[in-house]
Amino acid sequence: MSQFTFAHRFDQVSGSAIREIFKVIAQPGMISFAGGNPSPAALPDDTVRVIADEVLREKGKVLLQYGATEGYPPFVESLLQYVRDMLKCDIPAVLPVTGSTQAMDLLCKALIDPGDNILIENPSFLGNMQCMKLYQANLIPVESDEDGMIITDLEAKIKAYHPKMLYTIPTFQNPTGKTLPEDRRQKVAELANAYHFVVAEDDPYRDLRYDGTPVPSIKSFDRDGWVMFLGSFSKIISPGLRVGYIAGHPDLIRKCTVGKQSTDVHTANLNQAVVDQFIRRNLLPDHIQTVCAAYGEKMKFMLSKLAEFPGDVRYTKPQGGLFIWAELPEHLNAKSLLDKAIERKVAYVPGTHFCVGGGHENTLRLNFSNSTMEQIETGMNFLRDLVAENI
Amino acid sequence: MSQFTFAHRFDQVSGSAIREIFKVIAQPGMISFAGGNPSPAALPDDTVRVIADEVLREKGKVLLQYGATEGYPPFVESLLQYVRDMLKCDIPAVLPVTGSTQAMDLLCKALIDPGDNILIENPSFLGNMQCMKLYQANLIPVESDEDGMIITDLEAKIKAYHPKMLYTIPTFQNPTGKTLPEDRRQKVAELANAYHFVVAEDDPYRDLRYDGTPVPSIKSFDRDGWVMFLGSFSKIISPGLRVGYIAGHPDLIRKCTVGKQSTDVHTANLNQAVVDQFIRRNLLPDHIQTVCAAYGEKMKFMLSKLAEFPGDVRYTKPQGGLFIWAELPEHLNAKSLLDKAIERKVAYVPGTHFCVGGGHENTLRLNFSNSTMEQIETGMNFLRDLVAENI
Repeated sequence: MSQFTFAHRFDQVSGSAIREIFKVIAQPGMISFAGGNPSPAALPDDTVRVIADEVLREKGKVLLQYGATEGYPPFVESLLQYVRDMLKCDIPAVLPVTGSTQAMDLLCKALIDPGDNILIENPSFLGNMQCMKLYQANLIPVESDEDGMIITDLEAKIKAYHPKMLYTIPTFQNPTGKTLPEDRRQKVAELANAYHFVVAEDDPYRDLRYDGTPVPSIKSFDRDGWVMFLGSFSKIISPGLRVGYIAGHPDLIRKCTVGKQSTDVHTANLNQAVVDQFIRRNLLPDHIQTVCAAYGEKMKFMLSKLAEFPGDVRYTKPQGGLFIWAELPEHLNAKSLLDKAIERKVAYVPGTHFCVGGGHENTLRLNFSNSTMEQIETGMNFLRDLVAENI
Repeated sequence: MSQFTFAHRFDQVSGSAIREIFKVIAQPGMISFAGGNPSPAALPDDTVRVIADEVLREKGKVLLQYGATEGYPPFVESLLQYVRDMLKCDIPAVLPVTGSTQAMDLLCKALIDPGDNILIENPSFLGNMQCMKLYQANLIPVESDEDGMIITDLEAKIKAYHPKMLYTIPTFQNPTGKTLPEDRRQKVAELANAYHFVVAEDDPYRDLRYDGTPVPSIKSFDRDGWVMFLGSFSKIISPGLRVGYIAGHPDLIRKCTVGKQSTDVHTANLNQAVVDQFIRRNLLPDHIQTVCAAYGEKMKFMLSKLAEFPGDVRYTKPQGGLFIWAELPEHLNAKSLLDKAIERKVAYVPGTHFCVGGGHENTLRLNFSNSTMEQIETGMNFLRDLVAENI
């Protein structure tokens, strides 16, 4: 018992289970399929160093001074054009934020009262689920098939729960790797416009495509501004810089901006200026191509290793992103197996942590981006044998 | 009317009035006593550039990767020692945050339910008042005299309102410049320990002392961990880097850490690494001395100019910080006068914006750090004449 009486928003929140697992697996020699980290080779440290040096030489006093909550003006300009070009639709306003996690925090701050309903894919991204729980929202899972949310179930849940928001990761979803097809995206936008709820379209993995053809964003089908697009530079430049953005209707951007005034005043100027130069110098296309080539090879190799698993193990076959989702035979418990895996120096995240209300004890999430081909070979062999022994 | 239904936490919050004033006064030739910005000369851009280059060379991959919510490990180590040395007392835990504004956001997230009472100096810092309002706290003003909070009124308010928190800026307060004397600080800590409420001791200006002798922190009188110390590098290195910290009881630090997981995951590693090097290379004492010499001269000059104002104008005489608080004769309205001042290219912030529930229309806040001596001369002459004309 602590001497402090904490706010009720923490009643259902004890902290990220993943971040706790990370502490356990931070041992030398561990092969980790647990995180969602970019590979070290994908982090452009030399380029960031050169750019940081240049922008600090040219604009040092401006960058070290207080900035506008609305963002570092050159970055707001380049970012708005970047998002418009990427989404191929009109984007009226954009707000740079301190990683796209902050976009979710500000969106909830702007919209969510305790007890409000939020529809969500199940499983979904743990970090943002914790965010929504801290705003005391009710998370209502929408049923999925192999392509993601099932539209008939989505519409039924909209009618039953009158949600304030739908939270979705439509492209290479975390944790499943699934991508919502174009026709369903259009339906999601239409439903939001018809029933007047906000769609938080969280799309940090969209550039990490190794196969197939790009799918238009939900935002591109939005008529009246009900879809807010959450973007990130964490997967294509650096998560350590903490630069993301939220784009969409100016009324909501304004409310998020007021929330941000008393959250962190503004995102660090130097960090915005570095990303601004990546955009202005058009460095992203080549860098993304290099990153995708390496990640695609790893993903295909991990999928080929999963094909060697005993017959009852099922798994998603993503066309990009960072994750594969696996389902072991019903009677296996991925949490208990993790203890044995860690003894053999292999780690993953049990799928139950991503599920609304837990359950799905036989599932797990595998990341391939942050391991070498050799580590994938060794680690997946261990896991295959471990599963075979326990079936 | 917006198409969106915003959360009730925004019912009483429309955005920072100061940030709106900043937009109006962003004109060439404006002499601004309005902000709280460091002077450009006080921003160590060359040093930051050299350090950024070095840390990115040595640790680039680590800095660009995801970091721990608990902070960049070398910085957590140097920061803890720095805070212990500065406060000369045992500090069990520290959390680096994205500017000390985030410390306040996380502390409210950890502790404040809607309707909770928070005691506060009146006037106080607008940004953190907005933060507390967004957590739907009731702000209860404590009476002050020329030395800050009056302890008998503080105790009476504690008994009447059973506060969850006391928010105080004890040193060179924003907006008044007042410094709470040692005996009152000790009493504040004793009351917190007796009545079990959290003191948020916000102390960003403590190093900016131009006169008199340093006063021990409230935290240094804390017995059981009820005082949380909020620190900032914004005034002594750079606000644009967004690096601050919260120090105190590990239970509360832990709860703030869980809140931070879904607020911005972690403070940008590069920014933490830069401040870490300022501490490790012991660059702060000399830099602070240089900054204080320049600011002290400006403050004394502004005070000497205020002495030329018509007799009924009263003002605080701070020993440091960034602000002087002035009271015009009762019948004058500092908001109406601001329009005329802006026509003459001089700006300040009307004091009413800092007051709980408004009022105090005859007050204003003057900043001296971000103006040259010539600007102080010219601007204060204008203001003196303006007041004289309107008395």
